[in-house]
Amino acid sequence: MNPNPIQLFDAESSTFTYILAAPGSEDAVIIDPVDRNVERDLRHLERLGLKLAYVLETHAHADHVTSAGMLRARTGAQAAAPRGCGIAPAERQLDDGDVLAFGAGETIAVLHTPGHTAGSMCYVWRGNVFTGDTLLIDGCGRTDFQSGSADALYDSVTGKLFALPDATRVWPGHDYKGQSVSTIGWEKHHNSRLANRSRDDFVKLMGALNLPKPKLIDVAVPANQNLGLPHGA
Amino acid sequence: MNPNPIQLFDAESSTFTYILAAPGSEDAVIIDPVDRNVERDLRHLERLGLKLAYVLETHAHADHVTSAGMLRARTGAQAAAPRGCGIAPAERQLDDGDVLAFGAGETIAVLHTPGHTAGSMCYVWRGNVFTGDTLLIDGCGRTDFQSGSADALYDSVTGKLFALPDATRVWPGHDYKGQSVSTIGWEKHHNSRLANRSRDDFVKLMGALNLPKPKLIDVAVPANQNLGLPHGA
Repeated sequence: MNPNPIQLFDAESSTFTYILAAPGSEDAVIIDPVDRNVERDLRHLERLGLKLAYVLETHAHADHVTSAGMLRARTGAQAAAPRGCGIAPAERQLDDGDVLAFGAGETIAVLHTPGHTAGSMCYVWRGNVFTGDTLLIDGCGRTDFQSGSADALYDSVTGKLFALPDATRVWPGHDYKGQSVSTIGWEKHHNSRLANRSRDDFVKLMGALNLPKPKLIDVAVPANQNLGLPHGA
Repeated sequence: MNPNPIQLFDAESSTFTYILAAPGSEDAVIIDPVDRNVERDLRHLERLGLKLAYVLETHAHADHVTSAGMLRARTGAQAAAPRGCGIAPAERQLDDGDVLAFGAGETIAVLHTPGHTAGSMCYVWRGNVFTGDTLLIDGCGRTDFQSGSADALYDSVTGKLFALPDATRVWPGHDYKGQSVSTIGWEKHHNSRLANRSRDDFVKLMGALNLPKPKLIDVAVPANQNLGLPHGA
């Protein structure tokens, strides 16, 4: 049986944070925590009797600041991040194909999925995939800034994520419509940006979105590359 | 290993809806669905490949309207509700101690927990308790209207819910602070309204809250007693 993660929501940036609890041990991993929720997230770990092994980032976010550095300092967890995201202070620099082990034999498989950013990664744990801003429910992350590439995102989603088993549960990095979870099978057949669409069509679609520049990007990216800690800390 | 439910949120009323998926079958139960989210919730069932066996209510809500009747009509599920809540069209009228069975041997234990309303119930499934408005994370439901009783709520929480194993995960009917889940052990020792407080203190505290009347109560309660369907339907 595959457990669901604990899903936490940041209403200001519509960001999901996930706590993965290892069956049979107290060890846990947190994915993409947000700075302003650090006390809330620590209380969840305390309430659930969990000990944080890793703080794991899917990429260097442009729309909010991570609490990874604060959580590391408060819990003794290690920080883990994609090697290609410039998050230098993370002890574990992850490469495609790596396996992050925690708890009593739990493994998180690392998939390099460039497109939203060049370094973005997705993580697979017990029939669940944590897709960051690569694949959203019936959508995908933007590809027009910060080393993004619609071509690369098309390959990452259709080549790597859609190759996972259909029943794999998709836990996105954001949702703006009150949705929680999807599956690879559903997204493969129904995702309005990526299902049954040619690469050329997808690249054209993404190029025409004309999205505004994220308000926080000039602050958030450098902050996130330092695990959300002040530079020099 | 005890699975977590799928947790869905209604931002307008800060209501949680839960989907319980039975390991080893397609069968599912949904708890406290909200009318305006009926399409969202049906899509989640579709995406996850689930078939709805029961729509389950914790009580007749005063702050939002259920989609139980609509979900029943769209899926063929049965409606289940506490006998004491006046939800007459529900096929399954639940009493304290009943067991609701679904999927391949899954069981939901029914606990009558009066206090928020006289008929309110909590449901226990695989190490999880769904507490409706009886017990919230670091709080509890109000007891000043609709057959509420602070005395009864004190007994329900301290006598019945706090008797569950400490590791039982608490999934509330609402949260207003971005929190997702707690445990019986934590609430027993730290809940700011109920931990280490005498009955008299608790009754005094609840009596002094002076909360406004819920805006929707005169519409929502009769609607919810008809599973959210127009009367006559």
